[in-house]
Amino acid sequence: MSRTDAYIDQNLPHFQEELFEFLRIPSISAKPENKPDMLRTAEWLAGQIRGAGLEASIHETAGHPVVLGEWRGAPGKATVLVYGHYDVQPAEPLELWTSPPFEPEVRDGRIYARGSVDDKGQLFMHVKALQARMEAEGRLPVNVVLVAEGEEEIGSDNLVPFLEQNAERLKADYVVVSDSGMVAPGVPTIGSSLRGLAYFQVDVDGPGSDLHSGSYGGGVLNPATVLCRIIASFHDESWHATIKGFYDQVRPVEESREAISRVPWDDEHFRQETGSPALGGEKGFATLERIWVRPTVEVNGLLSGYTGEGSKTVLPSHAMAKVSCRLVPDQDPALIQTLFVEHVKRMTPEGVTVKVTIMHGGKPWRAQLGGKLYEAAAGALRAAWGRDPVYAGEGGSIPIVSDFERVLGAPVLLMGFGLPGENAHAPDEWFALENFEKGLHASASLLEQLGAE
Amino acid sequence: MSRTDAYIDQNLPHFQEELFEFLRIPSISAKPENKPDMLRTAEWLAGQIRGAGLEASIHETAGHPVVLGEWRGAPGKATVLVYGHYDVQPAEPLELWTSPPFEPEVRDGRIYARGSVDDKGQLFMHVKALQARMEAEGRLPVNVVLVAEGEEEIGSDNLVPFLEQNAERLKADYVVVSDSGMVAPGVPTIGSSLRGLAYFQVDVDGPGSDLHSGSYGGGVLNPATVLCRIIASFHDESWHATIKGFYDQVRPVEESREAISRVPWDDEHFRQETGSPALGGEKGFATLERIWVRPTVEVNGLLSGYTGEGSKTVLPSHAMAKVSCRLVPDQDPALIQTLFVEHVKRMTPEGVTVKVTIMHGGKPWRAQLGGKLYEAAAGALRAAWGRDPVYAGEGGSIPIVSDFERVLGAPVLLMGFGLPGENAHAPDEWFALENFEKGLHASASLLEQLGAE
Repeated sequence: MSRTDAYIDQNLPHFQEELFEFLRIPSISAKPENKPDMLRTAEWLAGQIRGAGLEASIHETAGHPVVLGEWRGAPGKATVLVYGHYDVQPAEPLELWTSPPFEPEVRDGRIYARGSVDDKGQLFMHVKALQARMEAEGRLPVNVVLVAEGEEEIGSDNLVPFLEQNAERLKADYVVVSDSGMVAPGVPTIGSSLRGLAYFQVDVDGPGSDLHSGSYGGGVLNPATVLCRIIASFHDESWHATIKGFYDQVRPVEESREAISRVPWDDEHFRQETGSPALGGEKGFATLERIWVRPTVEVNGLLSGYTGEGSKTVLPSHAMAKVSCRLVPDQDPALIQTLFVEHVKRMTPEGVTVKVTIMHGGKPWRAQLGGKLYEAAAGALRAAWGRDPVYAGEGGSIPIVSDFERVLGAPVLLMGFGLPGENAHAPDEWFALENFEKGLHASASLLEQLGAE
Repeated sequence: MSRTDAYIDQNLPHFQEELFEFLRIPSISAKPENKPDMLRTAEWLAGQIRGAGLEASIHETAGHPVVLGEWRGAPGKATVLVYGHYDVQPAEPLELWTSPPFEPEVRDGRIYARGSVDDKGQLFMHVKALQARMEAEGRLPVNVVLVAEGEEEIGSDNLVPFLEQNAERLKADYVVVSDSGMVAPGVPTIGSSLRGLAYFQVDVDGPGSDLHSGSYGGGVLNPATVLCRIIASFHDESWHATIKGFYDQVRPVEESREAISRVPWDDEHFRQETGSPALGGEKGFATLERIWVRPTVEVNGLLSGYTGEGSKTVLPSHAMAKVSCRLVPDQDPALIQTLFVEHVKRMTPEGVTVKVTIMHGGKPWRAQLGGKLYEAAAGALRAAWGRDPVYAGEGGSIPIVSDFERVLGAPVLLMGFGLPGENAHAPDEWFALENFEKGLHASASLLEQLGAE
């Protein structure tokens, strides 16, 4: 066992305490009222990075700041950029949390808190792995640039300009991102693809104000009913999307079928994890195909009229939906945005006005597997878990991954430690303590191997 | 001018002040937290009835109490039952009110407050007309029973049992209800029909908790999308309802076309009043036909997933809609409830569970025009407004009207003083001061004529 690994094992309880501090700050990027918390989090994180022996700096953006960690004490060695985000999703609905979202608590070997797995826990794991190597050996095996952003959950709008403006400073040979998951407990996983995203808000306006549904019902169109018709028009009876041109750039599923068949998978286990009465979705595709390599159109939110207790006979003046498309290679978010807006326009009847707001988008991504980065990752994961990793798609989106490749010209590795059922964007989000621990070792080992001749 | 009319004119400012007191109590029957306000309102009203010279009593029910006023000092004369309700709709969305809903304010000759026109203002008008006659003449021209309930806005569930249990005590020759409107300012109106109601809540459950729309999207059905498909299935492209059997009991529109053609009406004026970009609804029917004699299926509320600021990529575990049907003669709410539940069941795919809650129902109604009651009403309205009334349908529901006819065996008169655009169930509800004043005179004059030999 290396001195670094020993240091990790000895300091694990302390690392966990520090992670709890990190998780207690409600760094919700979507909510203006949490702006001070975002700044507090950035400063706290910069302090941790300094404590690990790196130089830390906080960089203002048009939105929330980017926190940078740098160590360039290994001339001639590779430079590894580690990316993570310190912002989290909103925690609503609060009443469904077993313990409060910003009061971390360990139950059954899991750390429960908003941001535990997505992504503060995984980001912090790298910070502590760096600290362990520094404390154990007095130096790092490679040059390191750590980039922690505060806007991943709201679209990373200001990170791309930051990358572009600092491309020289951030220049790296490899990029490592831990913001994804493993396919099952005990099965280390390397990400082979990501879905992209095109997120919209659809607002339907009818009457100038809410009307009495008796006195006016039948006289004017009901915006809530119209909204439902628009949403219903997104799919046919087979749950195949009907937006014209939607599938034109989708790669044939046949390309992925073999890799997917090698992933340990059980539909019934997955169904239980979701809690749904049955799995479902686009006909003709297996579950993992639907999640990894088929695009979706999902409703993320609906609001109209009276939603309180009891009944109110109101004809609402307004109805709102949040709708997002998960995109797969080689769909282009900009094109999908255009097609979506055109579809909604075609479905809009006279008698209402419909506005589509394009909220944000991200490109889908495919890993270029192979080379030193992927070999080192496989070795590091094998060392930590005692078995070879599998290569798995990821249904979620990390739009910044394509941007790293484009701006820095370096390959990206997705090495994530979440687990199925982790509730990343839902109440009772959790991160397995075992994965926090093994991830610390894997992170340290990855850098070690990338620094070896 | 009669002494009663003179008394009304002299005391109008004082009556208005008292009405403001009435309107200040937030008597929202739908909200458990307003239960004490409901009791306070009932007691305040009983005090007013006593002040008018009638005996007052408060009758507990399984829900909110019924307030009774009685005066039986005219043996040999007819007994007139006057009905109104002291409960109001919830005031949400509060931010759309120009002045707070429970702080009445006069602007441009209108009393703005929740309940001003529906129905506290109209109920109070009768109380003050009774007081005026009593003060001016020392007695009433007929026997009077005043019934004020506190559950009209939540379905009048406990009024029917109350009527049935007290049928002997409430026995009346005529029933007068002022909870409707006039077709236009200056055009006194007698109601010829009411729509009934069948109100539902539809709950769709999918995953056990909210899921990450990336990691799970495509794997399970989205309950919000399913809910929208169910709602979209309620109508065809012509906005004709597709619920099987829905129109089987609807009377042919031809029966009403002539009466409707006599009503002063301007589609563009109505459109402006609604604020909708265009009128719309079931193809093949004129606006007043759609509102008065054609049934509807309306969405009254929608809620699912994330509805706050920004974006959240959540696959919601639950989606809810409030949906109601306005019914026309001779549709039966019980049958429509069955048909609705069957339709939703047929539209429910595997992968979600759907629950339909039947919230409440009310029968549609048609007036049996003619006889002393309708002659007296026409005379009273003519005296107050200087012109003949028109006979108009009403798109809203007053389910209790059919019950009065059934239980008491007496004809019901709908003599209402609301106006188009009054925002009865919406923010900025108002009641025209002119109609409050003329309604006072009409109410007093109606009793006078019903008491005449």
